[in-house]
Amino acid sequence: MEADLVLLNGRIYTLDPQQPTAQALAIAGNRIVALGDNRQMQQLLAAGGQQVDLAGHTVVPGFIDAHIHFLAYGLSLQEIDLAGVDSLAEALERVAARARTTPPGQWLTGRGWDQSLWGDGAFPTRQELDRVAPDHPVYLRRKCGHAAWANSRALALAGITEATPDPPGGTIQRDATGAPTGILKERAMDLVERLQQRPTPDQAREAVRLAMAAVHRLGIVGIHNMEGADALRAFQTLRAAGELKLRVLQQIPEADLDAAIQLGIQSGFGDDFLRFGGVKIFADGALGARTALMMAPYEGEPDNYGIALAEPEHLKRQVEKAARAGLAVFIHAIGDQANRNVLDAIEAVRRHPANGSIGPHLRHRIEHAQVLHPDDVSRFAALGVIASMQPIHCTQDMVLADRHWGARARLSYAWSSLLSSGAVLAFGSDAPVETPDVLQGLYAAVTRRRPDGYPGPAGWYPEECLSIQEAVHAYTAGAAYAGGDENRRGTLSPGKLADLAVLSQDIFTVEPEALLETRVVATLVDGEWVYSS
Amino acid sequence: MEADLVLLNGRIYTLDPQQPTAQALAIAGNRIVALGDNRQMQQLLAAGGQQVDLAGHTVVPGFIDAHIHFLAYGLSLQEIDLAGVDSLAEALERVAARARTTPPGQWLTGRGWDQSLWGDGAFPTRQELDRVAPDHPVYLRRKCGHAAWANSRALALAGITEATPDPPGGTIQRDATGAPTGILKERAMDLVERLQQRPTPDQAREAVRLAMAAVHRLGIVGIHNMEGADALRAFQTLRAAGELKLRVLQQIPEADLDAAIQLGIQSGFGDDFLRFGGVKIFADGALGARTALMMAPYEGEPDNYGIALAEPEHLKRQVEKAARAGLAVFIHAIGDQANRNVLDAIEAVRRHPANGSIGPHLRHRIEHAQVLHPDDVSRFAALGVIASMQPIHCTQDMVLADRHWGARARLSYAWSSLLSSGAVLAFGSDAPVETPDVLQGLYAAVTRRRPDGYPGPAGWYPEECLSIQEAVHAYTAGAAYAGGDENRRGTLSPGKLADLAVLSQDIFTVEPEALLETRVVATLVDGEWVYSS
Repeated sequence: MEADLVLLNGRIYTLDPQQPTAQALAIAGNRIVALGDNRQMQQLLAAGGQQVDLAGHTVVPGFIDAHIHFLAYGLSLQEIDLAGVDSLAEALERVAARARTTPPGQWLTGRGWDQSLWGDGAFPTRQELDRVAPDHPVYLRRKCGHAAWANSRALALAGITEATPDPPGGTIQRDATGAPTGILKERAMDLVERLQQRPTPDQAREAVRLAMAAVHRLGIVGIHNMEGADALRAFQTLRAAGELKLRVLQQIPEADLDAAIQLGIQSGFGDDFLRFGGVKIFADGALGARTALMMAPYEGEPDNYGIALAEPEHLKRQVEKAARAGLAVFIHAIGDQANRNVLDAIEAVRRHPANGSIGPHLRHRIEHAQVLHPDDVSRFAALGVIASMQPIHCTQDMVLADRHWGARARLSYAWSSLLSSGAVLAFGSDAPVETPDVLQGLYAAVTRRRPDGYPGPAGWYPEECLSIQEAVHAYTAGAAYAGGDENRRGTLSPGKLADLAVLSQDIFTVEPEALLETRVVATLVDGEWVYSS
Repeated sequence: MEADLVLLNGRIYTLDPQQPTAQALAIAGNRIVALGDNRQMQQLLAAGGQQVDLAGHTVVPGFIDAHIHFLAYGLSLQEIDLAGVDSLAEALERVAARARTTPPGQWLTGRGWDQSLWGDGAFPTRQELDRVAPDHPVYLRRKCGHAAWANSRALALAGITEATPDPPGGTIQRDATGAPTGILKERAMDLVERLQQRPTPDQAREAVRLAMAAVHRLGIVGIHNMEGADALRAFQTLRAAGELKLRVLQQIPEADLDAAIQLGIQSGFGDDFLRFGGVKIFADGALGARTALMMAPYEGEPDNYGIALAEPEHLKRQVEKAARAGLAVFIHAIGDQANRNVLDAIEAVRRHPANGSIGPHLRHRIEHAQVLHPDDVSRFAALGVIASMQPIHCTQDMVLADRHWGARARLSYAWSSLLSSGAVLAFGSDAPVETPDVLQGLYAAVTRRRPDGYPGPAGWYPEECLSIQEAVHAYTAGAAYAGGDENRRGTLSPGKLADLAVLSQDIFTVEPEALLETRVVATLVDGEWVYSS
């Protein structure tokens, strides 16, 4: 097979045990043809083909973000960005700045705030927002997406008053007088969000375009998207126009499960750029809002076990229904009890008393798998459940994990324990909750420290740190496996799709700190350069 | 680009105006690389590649059946075959034969009978079936699929008695005493069909495998399937196993339209082997059962205008709903009034007063378009509506068309008029209603005669005969266009998918009668031989 593109003089890490490294790589069309040394690959080059000198740069399989909210990420690129803001004053200043350039009455939306970085860690209030933006409704989602901070005008538009009862599955935080403080948790957020307009198809397409360009700069060639129909429509429109240069595994929200079954859609339907993955189901809330479902109460809150967004029997019913229809499940579970409930539900289909394994080929996953009971760690491998995890959640949330879960936090973000037990790890970002920057994710995975060094040189529960090889695997081959795509991509192997990232440094040999300075030099998707610095 | 397969010494008709004929053709992987003479193509062959000597055989783009019920066709291959049976006695003998080999009490099902070929053309009765199969429930669908013939045991199991009212949209035929005759039309068929078990997933997969092998022998490389979820699941299972060697455009039954919109599925979603086409909607019944919706009454039945399965306002609503969601509509319309209703509904989205054209790219189609009012012929081209028609319906139904529609039959199966007005024709078989044999279809399209010569040398309304070029176009490039696939297949052009049929004779130069003796020598799908005689 002749090649039309050869990459020479590289440090190529294939992630393929058959041929782990190479100097050069040859591509024909959208496929990798062969790997070897410069001379061998040059001999494959067809007349008129292109040679690219990698100049000693490092090449890895293109990164896959196995958990992202891609349309929301694209829209967030246009919102008030509060991610990483380390004081209430700075957060308010950013809101004030946006208010100054936005006509009064229009919504100001933002996301990414984290009160655990601010002074005493107390939740902020509507009154603080009212002072800087009295003439706009303001609605700011917390970085976890499970709580929000609204000003008085937004609450008024939503009709939220002292008299409004907490909706099922949600909490309207109240002050000593019973008045809403501006903080809304879980389903209470719906009271405001239903007022906000969904993006138009044009806006959605534009947001996806923006997000695609942003992730290409990060070496990302594929995503597992955790959103529903609006995003799917935007992806299809771009795909039909030949503009989708990112491989998308699209999920089905639980509310659409019956529709998918009615139509006969199964996991895997689609093509190499856009296919269906599994059914996204929520088992519980999250850590930051203290709604993750725990076996024992939160530290210092003897009555708070978190919130079950799905009861065990419901989970079992839905998992079996999906599996019988040929659909994998991708279930959000944060707390140890939620993880156990999901493992129990998946065990019920993997070891069904009457039917043996129902849908044995299905790639069921737990999304986040944030804190596990010691008895549950080995069940991922035993039941063939993929752990879809996000390294930056660990270093962002470790303070809260210690505070709210105490010693139980030992098995939070238990990457090494899961891997040792034989589980497959797939890594992602949860963007826009955290940055989709994979190099920052790799740094978190291998150090369990923040870029500023916190909590010290050894990192947080360092026994759960991964090697750089293991961490890169989870962003490439592991994620591809989690999407059922391991025969098509995830490693740089002959016959696989030509998706790769060129990096400024050899991330397999540098000190961890250097990961944070490593740049993506270029990104290739389907044999085509989609980014080049 | 080097080729790994070259076909030499052929009479290759590409259907591509840029290069209409060639002697040889070169393929790399699953794509056509180039066409030219033997020497040119041999020069492209890579070391170790394969040369095939076509020995003067004719090559055409692989045929596409643009209207088929593929799972039903596969199941029908195992049913009692009454297609073309020319006497009641022979039909009864076939039922008797199957009864002898089937345990009493089990259903005997069959299809394909056509009473217009039998003696006086009267519908048969349950009593006739009772005589040959008293111990089995028997249910035999008419060739049109819009009427069925059941025995007394089947009626009893369905609870159909003298006292059973006609269901909405259906008729239980009755004798002079009011007792059911055994003939059920349209929705009355549901009363029996709901008793019959849907195929299990294994049975469905097996039926699709059988059908796939059968159509490969006919030179067919692709289908537009008019069925729903059961078939889609079988296709996906075969696709996942790498066994789907047939390009499937899958429709969405109208009952699943809301589910498709909820999920966000648009026309075109899928890959080169399995993708979604449009929403299948029924506007009326059919000719044989005299339920096709007409502007004026049936000949000799002053009160019968046929049955509207969808009212005009409903059609408009559904077409607009589908188009706004990015879904094309594939609407069954037989009678002239039904065709007008559908054209009106499509005109309402093509020329929407407020929105201009809604979904201008969508390939809306009328399925069958069997008899048209003179004012409506040119509207197909004007509105960009594809006429998806089945040549064998013409020669099978012409007697009934004359009998029931009289002079209106002049514009039935009005292929040449439609083509002259600029419409795109896509041809199919409606199998298992008729045979999927494309060569028989081509013969019907160019002669408008039956193989036995009826109704005479000129054919029926010979002004509507097509040239062989036009007819082949409708089974290849026209059908590909109707599926939105004209850039990927339908002609033998460099860069297109390598799907082709090798024929024993040059169908472009032989006399029409020779079409019926032409054999398919081999069929290539995606660069792979899937049939070879």
